[in-house]
Formats: sequence, C-alpha cells, structure tokens
Amino acid sequence: MSSALLDLPVKVSSERLFKSLMDLAEIGATPKGGNCRLALTKLDGQGRDLVTGWMKEAGMTVTVDKVGNIFGRRAGKDNSLPPVMTGSHIDTQPTGGKFDGCFGVLAGLEVVRTLNDHDIQTDAPIEVAIWTNEEGTRFVPVMMGSGAFVGKFKLEDILNTTDKDGKRVGDELKAIGYDGKESVGGRAVGAYFEAHIEQGPILEHEKKVIGVVTGSLGLRWYDVTVTGMEMHAGPTPMPIRQDALYASTFIMQDVVQNALDHAPHGRGTVGSATVHPSSRNVIPGKVTFTVDIRHENADALLDMHQRLMATCARIQKEHNVSVEVKEVSYFPPTPFDAAMVNTVREAAKSSGFSYMDIVTGAGHDAVYLASVAPTAMIFVPCKDGVSHNEIEDAKPEDLGAGAQVLCEAMLAKAIR
Amino acid sequence: MSSALLDLPVKVSSERLFKSLMDLAEIGATPKGGNCRLALTKLDGQGRDLVTGWMKEAGMTVTVDKVGNIFGRRAGKDNSLPPVMTGSHIDTQPTGGKFDGCFGVLAGLEVVRTLNDHDIQTDAPIEVAIWTNEEGTRFVPVMMGSGAFVGKFKLEDILNTTDKDGKRVGDELKAIGYDGKESVGGRAVGAYFEAHIEQGPILEHEKKVIGVVTGSLGLRWYDVTVTGMEMHAGPTPMPIRQDALYASTFIMQDVVQNALDHAPHGRGTVGSATVHPSSRNVIPGKVTFTVDIRHENADALLDMHQRLMATCARIQKEHNVSVEVKEVSYFPPTPFDAAMVNTVREAAKSSGFSYMDIVTGAGHDAVYLASVAPTAMIFVPCKDGVSHNEIEDAKPEDLGAGAQVLCEAMLAKAIR
Repeated sequence: MSSALLDLPVKVSSERLFKSLMDLAEIGATPKGGNCRLALTKLDGQGRDLVTGWMKEAGMTVTVDKVGNIFGRRAGKDNSLPPVMTGSHIDTQPTGGKFDGCFGVLAGLEVVRTLNDHDIQTDAPIEVAIWTNEEGTRFVPVMMGSGAFVGKFKLEDILNTTDKDGKRVGDELKAIGYDGKESVGGRAVGAYFEAHIEQGPILEHEKKVIGVVTGSLGLRWYDVTVTGMEMHAGPTPMPIRQDALYASTFIMQDVVQNALDHAPHGRGTVGSATVHPSSRNVIPGKVTFTVDIRHENADALLDMHQRLMATCARIQKEHNVSVEVKEVSYFPPTPFDAAMVNTVREAAKSSGFSYMDIVTGAGHDAVYLASVAPTAMIFVPCKDGVSHNEIEDAKPEDLGAGAQVLCEAMLAKAIR
Repeated sequence: MSSALLDLPVKVSSERLFKSLMDLAEIGATPKGGNCRLALTKLDGQGRDLVTGWMKEAGMTVTVDKVGNIFGRRAGKDNSLPPVMTGSHIDTQPTGGKFDGCFGVLAGLEVVRTLNDHDIQTDAPIEVAIWTNEEGTRFVPVMMGSGAFVGKFKLEDILNTTDKDGKRVGDELKAIGYDGKESVGGRAVGAYFEAHIEQGPILEHEKKVIGVVTGSLGLRWYDVTVTGMEMHAGPTPMPIRQDALYASTFIMQDVVQNALDHAPHGRGTVGSATVHPSSRNVIPGKVTFTVDIRHENADALLDMHQRLMATCARIQKEHNVSVEVKEVSYFPPTPFDAAMVNTVREAAKSSGFSYMDIVTGAGHDAVYLASVAPTAMIFVPCKDGVSHNEIEDAKPEDLGAGAQVLCEAMLAKAIR
C-alpha cells in the first residue's frame, strides 16, 4: 500500500525536519559544531523535554518506561491494532555529531507532523520511540534501552549500572524526571522502522540517496596475545629470534585477507595493538591486539572464525611463539524481515529516489527490535562516511528523502 | 708471542675473578639478584672506590681524566712504549646484571694480579680502563667516557649534560670525587682489548666458550609514520579502507626479510609500534613504529637502507596511505684490526678453549677505541643470551676462560 493509493501528495518537509535537528543540536552543542549529550545527563533531560514537547504539540501521548524509553503515540482508527513504530536515540558520543540517532527520532516526528498536515488517519496507531543510552559511552552496555525492552538485560541490573563516578542509572533517570512507570518490554509492536545516517561511505561512494538495509552484520571480537622472547636487537641472529611482533603481522594480515576472501560483506579489522617492552633495540617479547570480524551470513562468519583460529595455530607453530586467543563479544548476523525490507524498497522506488540494498555494520536499536517485531532500516548518506565525530554531516535533502521513505513505508503498514 | 714462549704456566684464577665480580655486585645489589649502579651516583662512586682500591693493592697507579675515565697502570720495562690497554665499564642499567661491563674491567685486573703472581714484567706497560657512563641510562649519550676520549664529544658538552632531575655530569663527577685532572684523550694506547659477555645467544647456541670478535655491526635507526584514514570498522567495506596498521605490517615484515636476505650478519627489528586511535572497532588512522637495521658490511647496510626506502615508497602507493621515514641514528660498521683479532684467535687456540669468530651487534667502548688504537674484543657466553636484566648470568669457568685469553693476548702484545 503506497501513499499514492491515498491519492494525496503526502510530502514531508525537509526544512522542518532540518530545523528541528538544528534546534535539538543547540542542547549540548560543542565548539567544533558537534554535540555532547551523554545519556541521562541534565542535557539529555533537556533534549528529551524538547522532543516530547514537540510530540505533545503534534497531538501525541507520551509514555515513559522504567528504563526511560519514551513512546510518543498518535492514535489510529483501530487502536486495538499493534502500532507501527519508528524511533532511535538522542543521546550522543562525547564528541558526537548532530545526526546519529537524532535523525531517526525526528524523522519519525516529521512523519507524524506530515500526517497531521494532511489530516490523514491511519488504521493502526503510529509510535515514535526514543531509546535510552544507545551510545553506551557513559553507561555500558550500548543499546541499553532497546536491549532491556526486548529482554536482553534485566531491569534491576540496568538500574544498578553505574558510570565512572559511581552514579546509578536508576538515580540519574529520576534526577532528569524520566524514571517512568511503564513496565519494560511487552509493549505491542506491529512493525518497527528505523531511519539512520549510514555511518559508512557506501551510499556516498555509490551515489545513492537511500540505503535499503537488509540486515545487520554479525560480529565477533577477540583479544589476541602473542608471546615470544625479548632479546637484544643487535646481538641476536635472525634465525633464532622469537619476535612476537613479526609473528603477529602474519595474523594481522590474514584478518584482512579473511575478510577480502568473504567479500563483499566480510569485514576484518585489527584496531588496537600494544607492543612490549616497546624499546627501539629490543625484539618484542609480547604483542596484544584486538580482532574484529563481521559478516552478514552466519555460516560465513563461522568460517571466518575457524580460519582465524587456524591461522593463529599455524603462526604459533611456524614462528615458535605462543598465541592465545580470547573471544570477548559475539553478536549473530541479524537479517531483517524480508517483507519489511521490501516495503522500504518499494517506498524508495515510488518516492523516486536512487536506492540500493545495504547491510549495517554498526549496531542499532533496530537490531534488538528485530527479535520482537518485523523490522527494517532506512539509511541516508553522511559526509565521507564519518560519524561519532563533531564533523559528522548530512545534507538536508538526503535527510528529507529518508523521512519521506520512512513516511511511505509506515503508511504502507499502518493503512489497511 | 704467546705466553707459552715465556715457558711459564701463566694461569688466571677463575675463582678470584668471580669473587671480585660478586664483591663488586654487592654495591647496588637488587632484590632479584641484579645490579643498579647508575653512572655517577653515590653507588657508582663506591664501585669505583672498590675497584681502584684493588688496582692500588695490585701495585697499579691510578689516573682519572676530566670526564671520570679511570686508568690503572702497571709499569713495563720500557715505559716509553705505549701501553697495552684493556677495560670496560662498571656502571649498570637500572635493572642490570652483575657481568655487563664489570667482567671486562675485572678480567683486566685479574690479568694484572696473575702477572704479579708470576712476577712477570712486560716490556710495554699494561693499563686497565674504567670508562664513564657506558650505559647511557642516566645521562645520554651512551658510551660517553670512551666517546669523549676518542674526540667524538666535546668535554664542555659532556660536563653540562644533565639527568632528568637536572643534575650536571660535571657536578656529579665532583660529588663522587672522580672529577680528574688529566685531559680527556691524547693518552697513548698501543693496543686495546675488551672482554665482555656476548649479550646474545650465539656462543651458547654453538657451544663455544670464546667469541673472537671481528668487528661491530653498523646500525641505522628510523622512525616510520604511516597515515591512513580513521573509519568505523563495521560500516566501512574492505576495498575502500586506508588501514594504516595493515599497510604497516608489510613494511614490518620486509624489515625482517631484508635482514634474512642479508644473512648471516643482517639484523632487522621493529621494536616499538603505536597505533592510533587504538580502538577495537576503529580502523587505525595512524601507526608509528621504529626500524633498527644492522650489518657488518657498509655496502650491505647501504643496500638494506635503500631497500627499506623502496619498500616504504611501494607500500605508500599500493595501500593508499602516506609513509614518512625519518632516520634518527647512524653508526657505520667497525671492523676490528685484523692483526689484533688474530692475536685473540691465537690466544684462544693456544689456551685450548673452543672458539669461533663473531661480530658484536651491541655497542661497546671498544667500538670507539677502534678509531684511535688497534682494537679487538673477546666474548664469553651468557645464559640464554640475556643481558640488561637482573637475571643476566654467566659461568665462572667461562668468565675465567675469557680472562685467560685476554691475558695471553695482552702478553703477546706487551712482550717483545
């Protein structure tokens, strides 16, 4: 069901959406043009007040649950139907940008404002969610609110989580007035869409406006420790060395080659490495480094895992070093609901924007929501693929295009 | 001229030598069995007092120059002849061992004591030198005293060098009573031998007791900076990455391969590396690392240098990163005097110890002395090749063997 079937020109306003984004960005604005609105700080509270105020002005009812997740609801003709939900987050990184998260929330608000403009009543209710602490910078884990909503975390554990100053989530929720009464989870969700900046360079590179997100890459994280023998760089001949860094370089290269051999959706990254004792004329005795591998397909990710283990075992043998691998995180690949993805694709097509299928390599609230409701995401380009940075940027027309596709997709699900 | 020609059984005492080493090691002893006697500290002063006391007991006259180098002299029959000199240093690393340096000085003292035992008078005088601040830990540069002696450094610069607390070499020499009156350098040296623990694993590995040191490896040090592009590890596809660490691994590997291709005397080491921003899920945007290449042959070292430059240029191009290389140190290869080296080889042979030719990869006072006098070195094994460490260890019989070879080599030069 596309909005065309309504025989109405349902057009969102890019200008209104962008103005709301800029207004929200004034709260916690940083000198370099970014945002610092860490979860559950006074500034986060001010941001929540501003957006829930806009929700109410748009005629929505606002509900808050016990971990501070916010649900703005626009009634439908049949309120017994599960709502068509969209949302994201408005907390930011310490030196974050103006679009990561905020775009998804305000695109949802723009959909509601647009429906109001055209006096459109949907069958199912429409809801816009603001999930608590997606960034995970002040409080760990990331995607805390949506994770709690889908039952990944226990309420009590979350409320007792503390920041580095020992302040509790429960107390900080109360301090900003967002310690809601509603139980966490169990709220009906008929369908969940999330619009987001891509946080990667593919759309820009491929010159497409809309990314139809088919799912989320699975991820495995490891800590690798290679132990050799610390020796003087001058007097020790090459053949009898046990150079932990030299041995490590072969594993590091295979992390990348492993991903290339699982193209196009394989990823392999060594982001951090530490060399001991780190002296110019001492052969490294120990190197610790991280490995991050990702793939959209569970079998491929398992294959990449097995190859990493085999490579580590081989290097241990060939280089006379010890290699210890510890897995520290695992998220399985999450394919989004095929019908929902198709709804986004059709909306992009009927809206007339260029589009392409894409997978998300970063984590999003939608990845958790996918475990309780049919879910899909809509990406728009961000400049140079940069996010989590004050220079994060996106074009008003691209953001408007994302909101337009979101609007059409939500209408397709909310109108019978 | 070997001692056999004296028709006397001139045998050094391994026991006496080892006892003196252990007595000296009580000054600045560390809990883990090592030594901390940093240059020009009160403890260094106590060490100097102990050894110069032993020199005087052995009938030697003691002279100190303006940078604190000590010369213990045993007169010859013809004191117009330039002395046959040996020596090393008694300052240590912060967590140093009992043998590095001290062995060379006390092996020289053991030679004098042995000549006294046998009432042998040499034609040329015999001298035992203690060079100031060889380790370079408290005051930079390393091999300060011997470097000043051969004119590598200016006296005024050395005296004004300060430690991290701002204390001057000149003041610290005075504080321990070793601000001597003799001019630095210009003292006649007919021949210079230095006995030292190997500080590497070759002798142990080859099961040889004596290393006949034919020269010192030349050395070039570099700082390399590879700059790529910091990006999210999840959303960024492999083909468009500019991964500074991945690019760096190819240079790091070629540093080792370069040395292997210049076997057996090539060395290549990346001892230190730092990754930015060093976050598990961020593609490294910048990596800085050190390169240390060494070879005994100047042409081969130049060839290794040119290959390093070519590799860096190639990786810059192939990996779409920028590679900056800065050379920070250069010591040319120093072949020792062929006749002197042969004297050591003959002494090892006539003494009946197993021996092999070897080059030194580490720096020694002898490398500077080689620029003003015919020079050679004698190595003895140290356990597992470990030095600059409290667990540094050597066998009394091996140390005695080294002193015996030193004795025979010095006699060969000091008796006509």
